[in-house]
Amino acid sequence: MELKQALDRLAELQRKMYAYRAASSSLYLDGTTVAPKDTAEGRGVALGVLAGEQHKLFSDPQVGELLDFLWAHRDGLDRPVRRQVEELRRSYDQLRRIPADEYMEYAVLTNQAGDVWRRAKEASDFQLFRPVLEKLVAFNIKFAGYYDSAKAPYDALLNEYERGVDMAYLDKFFATLRERIVPLLHAVMEKEPPDDSFLRRRYPVDAQRKFSDYLMQVLGLDRSHCTIGETEHPYTLEFNNKDVRITTHYHEDNMDFSMYSVIHEGGHAKYELGIADELQYTCLAGGVSMGVHESQSRFYENLIGRSLPFIQAVFPKMKEFFPEQLAGVTAEQFYRAVNKAQPSLIRTEADELTYCLHVMVRYEIEKQLIGGTLAVKDVPETWNRLYKEYLGVDVPDDSQGCLQDSHWSGGSFGYFPSYALGSAYGAQMLRNMEQDMDVWGPVSKGDLSGVSAWLGEKVHRHGGLMEPADVVKNACGPFDPTVFADYLEKKYSQLYAL
Amino acid sequence: MELKQALDRLAELQRKMYAYRAASSSLYLDGTTVAPKDTAEGRGVALGVLAGEQHKLFSDPQVGELLDFLWAHRDGLDRPVRRQVEELRRSYDQLRRIPADEYMEYAVLTNQAGDVWRRAKEASDFQLFRPVLEKLVAFNIKFAGYYDSAKAPYDALLNEYERGVDMAYLDKFFATLRERIVPLLHAVMEKEPPDDSFLRRRYPVDAQRKFSDYLMQVLGLDRSHCTIGETEHPYTLEFNNKDVRITTHYHEDNMDFSMYSVIHEGGHAKYELGIADELQYTCLAGGVSMGVHESQSRFYENLIGRSLPFIQAVFPKMKEFFPEQLAGVTAEQFYRAVNKAQPSLIRTEADELTYCLHVMVRYEIEKQLIGGTLAVKDVPETWNRLYKEYLGVDVPDDSQGCLQDSHWSGGSFGYFPSYALGSAYGAQMLRNMEQDMDVWGPVSKGDLSGVSAWLGEKVHRHGGLMEPADVVKNACGPFDPTVFADYLEKKYSQLYAL
Repeated sequence: MELKQALDRLAELQRKMYAYRAASSSLYLDGTTVAPKDTAEGRGVALGVLAGEQHKLFSDPQVGELLDFLWAHRDGLDRPVRRQVEELRRSYDQLRRIPADEYMEYAVLTNQAGDVWRRAKEASDFQLFRPVLEKLVAFNIKFAGYYDSAKAPYDALLNEYERGVDMAYLDKFFATLRERIVPLLHAVMEKEPPDDSFLRRRYPVDAQRKFSDYLMQVLGLDRSHCTIGETEHPYTLEFNNKDVRITTHYHEDNMDFSMYSVIHEGGHAKYELGIADELQYTCLAGGVSMGVHESQSRFYENLIGRSLPFIQAVFPKMKEFFPEQLAGVTAEQFYRAVNKAQPSLIRTEADELTYCLHVMVRYEIEKQLIGGTLAVKDVPETWNRLYKEYLGVDVPDDSQGCLQDSHWSGGSFGYFPSYALGSAYGAQMLRNMEQDMDVWGPVSKGDLSGVSAWLGEKVHRHGGLMEPADVVKNACGPFDPTVFADYLEKKYSQLYAL
Repeated sequence: MELKQALDRLAELQRKMYAYRAASSSLYLDGTTVAPKDTAEGRGVALGVLAGEQHKLFSDPQVGELLDFLWAHRDGLDRPVRRQVEELRRSYDQLRRIPADEYMEYAVLTNQAGDVWRRAKEASDFQLFRPVLEKLVAFNIKFAGYYDSAKAPYDALLNEYERGVDMAYLDKFFATLRERIVPLLHAVMEKEPPDDSFLRRRYPVDAQRKFSDYLMQVLGLDRSHCTIGETEHPYTLEFNNKDVRITTHYHEDNMDFSMYSVIHEGGHAKYELGIADELQYTCLAGGVSMGVHESQSRFYENLIGRSLPFIQAVFPKMKEFFPEQLAGVTAEQFYRAVNKAQPSLIRTEADELTYCLHVMVRYEIEKQLIGGTLAVKDVPETWNRLYKEYLGVDVPDDSQGCLQDSHWSGGSFGYFPSYALGSAYGAQMLRNMEQDMDVWGPVSKGDLSGVSAWLGEKVHRHGGLMEPADVVKNACGPFDPTVFADYLEKKYSQLYAL
């Protein structure tokens, strides 16, 4: 085999993988947006076949030979290509270590588990979900061994979502946060809460849609490359750096939900749209990790979107969209309302201060489940105990408790910590951004171009070219969770006059 | 190989083919509806890969061996499976006769030709399109030889769209129509045209959307299996018999456009939704041919939708949606307006009477192009001459002339006659339906369930289980074009008091 030919085959392999991803994404997008209600079966058939073909394509021994050959010639490869070979080699080896029958059995299981979870959540009955969750946990413990038998199982899973992160790292991270956030929250709870009743007035969906269009404009999202759709749960879906879709959901009595979901998903979209052209149609074309992705979405949502300068910038326009609903409300009052801190039951509705406490509950449970020190049957009790301990709230039922998230039913164990890491990465990026440039002057005028350019240069364009930890380090130096704790302390002390 | 194993492989092969079709359809649907504007490139990459993989899957010699084995055991096969083997064998042999490099070259050509055609149409400049059209014609002549070297090239192409139909058949069919329609049209043109000015009033798009919802209800289309979207050009896209999408386009000053496009595409959708469950995820799952498909869409659009009883049934509701626009208009006047016959330039805007004349122009030109008796450079002149001869109109430019349709740019030669055949099949089905049951009593009350049931039983459920001609014969006896001519004569004589 000649090097030239091998490089062509590498490019072709990655274009094929892109095509399968794009096809599955398109079917998923359709299924969650415009597809008629009773059509899941046919889509399931198509998605199942595509997943099987994708698996066959990538687990072919010829792929291994190609990657071996290219690795042997790595000194002659450009940096992106070398990195592609490295990443593909890792995925290939991992896939080959999973016996094909177990892989297929697990695919069937996760496919069914979503339905079972939905029914259990609707019925608020953990017992319905329990047998499936037991199988999912057992599979993940086994798969962790295939991923990296030298690691503790949960460390091997964590590494899948945020490479380089393990329990030692997270224990320290969460301990720091808990030490700082819990007393802060207690102090906050002793104060008079801000009035946020005006957020619950009736905000017509049509006006909210127009407001979303305006927000996308402020975020600098080019509509010829990024659309906004409507789904039950908001998400971002990327085809490539010229084609990204975000979605939101409009609640008439909850205008800040769509406002902040648009800014959050917009942050994900900025990342994907900012990845370099040269990485497109390769395995390096997406955001590098869940944690870094969340750092971008939360940067826009919380650090910018929930800042006073940003709200001051967009508030006059908001008053045009919602003149009656916001009559007599000032930007400062709006700022206080959308930053109201309050222990609550549901992670996705949590405020910036308490969010990480929700994540910690899940982290502790996953650690013990995968570590074998917690039985699945005891999850609800442990969940409820930890919510009481960390957040001080009583969980009334499983639907609002351990059945609230879809992650486990999709087979994701080790994913949750990325949310908290993302928040912390973001705070550190902001600190460095403030050292590099005037952030708040332009933001207070609704100009986010400087923020975009900084993140684009430091984070976005690199895609998967570096390790997640190196992307963070490149943007803001070695990770230091106290920066996030300092940020929260400063913000909430000021907000609540502590 | 055991028979049981071979049958499993046959089912698996067809599920894979289904998945590739569904994936490509989903990307196409997305591209024409919600995708952001500047995203064609990435979709093109994905669609190209999927087409290549689909080709590889189906042209694999193992597929040939499987089909040979099953054909040798055909006596032990159920009728649907036997038919699947027969159909797949035909497609496989045909695909194998096309050299792989020519197949790929043609795929690239048709992919580019669409863009070239669009630009040429915009500029109304046939010369821009000419070199591409020359290549497309040459490829089709060559491919016709691969399809069936024993046939004249255009016969081989016609056979692809409507099996069993050839030039001898169509010459006779079109001669009959021409003999009857041309004098009828002349007689009509001597009469005072009906007033249709109220159709051009301002019909707000939102009200039209609600009217479409109502029409889908009248058609008996289950919205949990069939949605309606909006695209530049209306179409129907089927995933399977539980998932069909139709689209329309709303023009504020042209309410009958969306009304009749919804009924037309609704007819296609009824067909696909009515195909038997047992044929799903096999090569027999779609409508059997273009001609039979058009017979269903035109049945609903013209024979039902443009009938006086149907209009009388829906008119009270129309007046609720458009009270000002239809003030003072009666159902009878509306009926006359949407049946106004008038020679025109654009096929897709033609009325029921003149439509087939538009098709004949294309048939004559294709016949000569593929037969080698007309050079591509002479297409515009011939087009304009035939429009004058058949329809009596002067073509002002290529954009409204030989560049108006996308078919040739997509590589379709031999497709147009199916439109006319569909109209004629439909008329004959109506005659037999009237013999079998009371059609117009229920229709005049807005009840189309009897019509649906008749077509479902006679046509829809069979999918691709029979030859197209046998489906028609099964529904209404041997094909007889005079039935369609009689129908037109009766309808227009009454409308215009001839």
